[in-house]
Amino acid sequence: MTAERAINFNPGPAALPLPVLEQAREELLNFKGTGLSILETSHRSKAFESLMLETENLMKDLMGIPDGYRVLFLQGGASLQFAQVPMNFLPAGKTADYIVTGGFAEKACKDAMQVGRVHLAATTKDGGHRRIPRQEELRFSPSPAYVHITTNNTIVGTQWHYIPATPGCPLVADMSSDILSRPLDVAAFGLIYAGAQKNMGPSGVTAVIISEEMLARVPQGLPSMLRYDLQAKNNSLYNTPPTFGLYTINLVLKWMADQGGLIALEELNGRKAGRLYRVLDRYPDFYRGHAEEDSRSLMNITFRLPSEELEALFLAEAGKENMTGLKGHRSVGGIRASIYNAMPEEGCRALAAFMEGFYRKKG
Amino acid sequence: MTAERAINFNPGPAALPLPVLEQAREELLNFKGTGLSILETSHRSKAFESLMLETENLMKDLMGIPDGYRVLFLQGGASLQFAQVPMNFLPAGKTADYIVTGGFAEKACKDAMQVGRVHLAATTKDGGHRRIPRQEELRFSPSPAYVHITTNNTIVGTQWHYIPATPGCPLVADMSSDILSRPLDVAAFGLIYAGAQKNMGPSGVTAVIISEEMLARVPQGLPSMLRYDLQAKNNSLYNTPPTFGLYTINLVLKWMADQGGLIALEELNGRKAGRLYRVLDRYPDFYRGHAEEDSRSLMNITFRLPSEELEALFLAEAGKENMTGLKGHRSVGGIRASIYNAMPEEGCRALAAFMEGFYRKKG
Repeated sequence: MTAERAINFNPGPAALPLPVLEQAREELLNFKGTGLSILETSHRSKAFESLMLETENLMKDLMGIPDGYRVLFLQGGASLQFAQVPMNFLPAGKTADYIVTGGFAEKACKDAMQVGRVHLAATTKDGGHRRIPRQEELRFSPSPAYVHITTNNTIVGTQWHYIPATPGCPLVADMSSDILSRPLDVAAFGLIYAGAQKNMGPSGVTAVIISEEMLARVPQGLPSMLRYDLQAKNNSLYNTPPTFGLYTINLVLKWMADQGGLIALEELNGRKAGRLYRVLDRYPDFYRGHAEEDSRSLMNITFRLPSEELEALFLAEAGKENMTGLKGHRSVGGIRASIYNAMPEEGCRALAAFMEGFYRKKG
Repeated sequence: MTAERAINFNPGPAALPLPVLEQAREELLNFKGTGLSILETSHRSKAFESLMLETENLMKDLMGIPDGYRVLFLQGGASLQFAQVPMNFLPAGKTADYIVTGGFAEKACKDAMQVGRVHLAATTKDGGHRRIPRQEELRFSPSPAYVHITTNNTIVGTQWHYIPATPGCPLVADMSSDILSRPLDVAAFGLIYAGAQKNMGPSGVTAVIISEEMLARVPQGLPSMLRYDLQAKNNSLYNTPPTFGLYTINLVLKWMADQGGLIALEELNGRKAGRLYRVLDRYPDFYRGHAEEDSRSLMNITFRLPSEELEALFLAEAGKENMTGLKGHRSVGGIRASIYNAMPEEGCRALAAFMEGFYRKKG
C-alpha cells in the first residue's frame, strides 16, 4: 500500500502524515474501544468531549498560545470567516482595514464590504501579487476596527515574514496555509483563523484563535452560529461539530509534537523550500519564480516555464514519477508545489532532482 | 471486529451502515486508485468533482426530486441554516411564520428573530411538545415570506405525518432527523435542509434541497458563504467542501439504493419503530411514551420509566448488553432510542426483547 503512495503537492486538501492515516484506518471501526466508529460517536460523549479539550490544549502547547486566548473549531472554512469577522467586529460607523496580497485576501475584503465600511490599507495587485508590502507602505485609516492580513498566499506563493504593526487596533489574520508551520507570537493577534485542510488535517474544520478581549466585543443581535462567544462558551460544541475532522486534527497535532514541535517543523520546512528555490535560482531564465525573493512562501513554491507547452510536459513527466497536484492555479498558471508540514523531505528532494533533470533535457 | 460492534442508539452522530464503514476503511489510503487518501484529495480533482455530481444525482434519484431543484452540500449544520434561511428569504418589511414543535424548531425561530420579523404560527411548548399541531390549529400571518417546520423532533420524539398547507408561500423544512427515511413530495417544499449526521452520513455536511425559484430570490448584499445561489452556481464547490464527509455520504446513499430505496426503508423503519412502540403500548404504566400516538416519530422513540432510579438501572443493564446512546435528552429525561436508517432491525429486536425482560424483572 505504502509503495503506491503518490507524492502529493496538492494545495489543499493536502498531504497528511502517513502514520496519521494509518492510525485513522486502524481505529475506523472502533474508536477508543467503544465499539463505535468515530463517525458514529456522539459529540456529547465523554470520549469525544475529552478529545475536544485535548485538541484545544495541543494547539495551545504547540503554538505557545498565551493565557487570555481560546481555540475554537468551527465549520465553513476560512470563507465563512470572511463574513463572520466583520459581522462580529466591524460595527456601523467604523472602518476595517484590509491588506490585499492575493486572491483569498481579496475575497475576505469583498465580503467585509458587504457588511460595513472597508479601507484598503495596501494592495499588491498591480504587480500580480508578487510580494508582501513593507510596513512603511501600509496606509491605515485613522482608527480602524481591525487590520486584516493573509499570512500566506496559497495561489501566488508569497508569505509575510514580519508581523505588521497596526495603529492600536487588533490584527486579524487568515493563516489557512501556514498555521502551525513556524513559531508565532500569537499575542500580536486579536484573531487568527485557518481552514484545516493544508497544515492541520482534512477539510471541513476551521480553527479560530481568539483573545478574550475580542470575545467580549461580540455584539448582540447576531444569529447563534455567527457568534464567536457562543462557541467559546460551549467549547465549540454549541452544535454538532465535524467529529471525524476533529479526530484527525487531534492525530495530526500529536504527530507534530512528535516531530519536535514548531521549531523543528520550521527548520524542516525551510530545508524543503530551500531545495526547490535553489533550483529556481540556478536556472532563473527557465524556472521563473512568481514571488519576489524576500516574500517567498515556504509553503507554496510557484513558477512558470518558458512556454505553456513546456509546462504541460513538465506536469506530464512529473506525473509519470508519481508526483501529483503540481498544476498552478489558473490565475497564475505554471507550476505550484505545495509543501506543507506533512510533505516529507524526500518529496522535495525528488521534485528538485526531477527539476534538474527536466532542465538538462529541455533547458 | 464486527463482533465487538455496539448497538448504537445515539441521536446523532449516529450509526452508519457497517458495509459503508468497511469500504471507507478499505479505501482510506487509496481513493479510486489515485495513491492518495480521500482526505488528501483535491476538491478540484476530476475524481472528486465527479463524486460531487454523482452524490447530487443519487439524492435526486432516491428522493425523486423534480426538475427545478438543486441539491447543495454546505457546512455549519442545520444550526447555520437557522440563520441562512432568514438572511436569504426574510426581507425587511416581511414576516416569516414558524411552527415550534421542539427545541431545534425553537432555535430556528429565535435565530430568525435576530434577522427579521417572525410570527409564531403554532407552538406545542405548553404540552411539552408531545404532538404535532393539526392543520386547523395553524394560524398564519397574512402574507408570510415562508413557513418553517421541523419535520422530526429528535429530542421529544415527534414527527409530522402530513405536509401542512401554507397561505401561498414556500414551505421550508428542517429534516435533519428524518431526511431519506421515507418517500416525500419534494415539490411541496421551497427549501429543505438537513444535517447529515443522522440519516445520511457523518457530521460536518448539511444537505440543502432548494427550488430554482428560491435561488432566484437570493438578495444582493450578502457575504459569499451565506448565499445559496453562489454555491448552486459552483456545484457546492465555491470553497473547499468537507471532502471526507461527502465521500461517506456518497457511500451511504449507494447503500440506501441497494436496500431498495426510500419505499423499502420506510417499511423497514416502520417495522423497527413498531417493535418498540408495541412494548410501550403493552406496558403503558411502566414505559410512558412522551409523544402522543398520532405524532410518534419513527426515528426517535422517547419514554420515561416510573422513577429516575429505574431509568438509571435500565441504561446500566442495557449497556451490559452492548446497547449504547439510549439516555434521553436532558430536557425530556428518561430513555430515547434513535433508530435511523442504518440501525439494523436486529438492533430494535434486541432492544424490544431487553425491554420485555426489564419489565418482567422490575415492572
